[in-house]
Amino acid sequence: MRNLKLTIEYNGGKFCGWQKQNGKRSVQGELETAFFNLTGEKTNVEGSGRTDKGVHALAQVASVKTQNTMPIKNFKYALNNLLPDDIRVKKVEKADDNFHARFSAKRKTYKYLVHIGREKSAIKNEILGFYPYDVNYEKLLSASKILIGKHNFKGFCSANTQVKDFERTIFDISISKKGKDISFEITGDGFLYNMVRIIVGTLLEYSAGRLDLENIKKALKTGDRKYSGKTMAPNGLYLKSVVYE
Amino acid sequence: MRNLKLTIEYNGGKFCGWQKQNGKRSVQGELETAFFNLTGEKTNVEGSGRTDKGVHALAQVASVKTQNTMPIKNFKYALNNLLPDDIRVKKVEKADDNFHARFSAKRKTYKYLVHIGREKSAIKNEILGFYPYDVNYEKLLSASKILIGKHNFKGFCSANTQVKDFERTIFDISISKKGKDISFEITGDGFLYNMVRIIVGTLLEYSAGRLDLENIKKALKTGDRKYSGKTMAPNGLYLKSVVYE
Repeated sequence: MRNLKLTIEYNGGKFCGWQKQNGKRSVQGELETAFFNLTGEKTNVEGSGRTDKGVHALAQVASVKTQNTMPIKNFKYALNNLLPDDIRVKKVEKADDNFHARFSAKRKTYKYLVHIGREKSAIKNEILGFYPYDVNYEKLLSASKILIGKHNFKGFCSANTQVKDFERTIFDISISKKGKDISFEITGDGFLYNMVRIIVGTLLEYSAGRLDLENIKKALKTGDRKYSGKTMAPNGLYLKSVVYE
Repeated sequence: MRNLKLTIEYNGGKFCGWQKQNGKRSVQGELETAFFNLTGEKTNVEGSGRTDKGVHALAQVASVKTQNTMPIKNFKYALNNLLPDDIRVKKVEKADDNFHARFSAKRKTYKYLVHIGREKSAIKNEILGFYPYDVNYEKLLSASKILIGKHNFKGFCSANTQVKDFERTIFDISISKKGKDISFEITGDGFLYNMVRIIVGTLLEYSAGRLDLENIKKALKTGDRKYSGKTMAPNGLYLKSVVYE
């Protein structure tokens, strides 16, 4: 039995999300079907975490155990041949027996891409967030610094979560601008439900003068969701990388 | 009765094409539904031409007649409010009574965006063509010049067409490179069925050393489709602009 580490790119636009759901098109389901069609094995393809409906991945990591003896380098092409065009396996590596894509993950980077303007892009709407107000880029940078470090992020988490421990560490938030698009990259040891989308919404609202800095501080201090900003749409969100030790 | 000129952007990925088809999701159908919901009028929204399933538009032009007396500037926002996210009205103008988006068109520019590489992009697959062989950019530029001018383009047209006159004029082909993506912009007085996609496929095949220059010349001279290259996928094709006089 070999343990494989898969690195996967996908466009979340036409999936119910990463996780299998009866009768719906999921990334995990498509991968398990491709694996079954290739090897005849009913496997569990375990992701580093679930991504929601509409959320993309540049490099989701998954682990899967197989008895198939095909050379490792052949898996990538064989799987891509069986997968739909909106999922591509970028890399397949042999992993240690105890490697598990979720439990072994040490940090993750999410990227959020947002178009600032009066109108959404019809062409790129599925892969780009949208914010209709002018933003002050300097305010965006300065406010992002407040969130870096170990905090209770309950105020930046959607209500429907079963998590009990809201403490997470954000190692870095880097923000860059290209024309009318802004890219956020947030690296942390883990993220609560909708946390990246709420952080981006909060920073944008503050930088557009629609939310006070005090609110961000209060959201961090009190853990009350009412102080933070809006939850951005899933279509601008990308799981960019997962780091293991 | 006023005659309106609409400029429209759309992502063709989830449409059966521009033209209405029973039971299928078309761009024209969505526009006519939005118009009906706005004005109560059953209108014909006439495009400058049909685009196929999967083909996009940055600025398709359409004309529509209405008895509605709303200020012209309000149509855009009202329509966008009623339209799905993959269609955006960019502009609404009052046109002369005899303006017709198709019959009045003098020239069109199509753009074809292609990614050169071993792998398709899962994220951008819907909005980007794909070619897996290395291409020689200089050969691409030089061969494109052969096609400029007035020619019989029957050799660059798919068989299933009812057209009798295959003569068209190409005014310009401009090609640019950005990283591993190549953009073609082709301007002409009109285009045959699949003509842009076959021209791009032919130029790529030649520039990758998979087709001789003689074949391109023969396709032009004999009108025989067997000499030209492959038809590129619709997902890289964009109607970029339509010029009227």
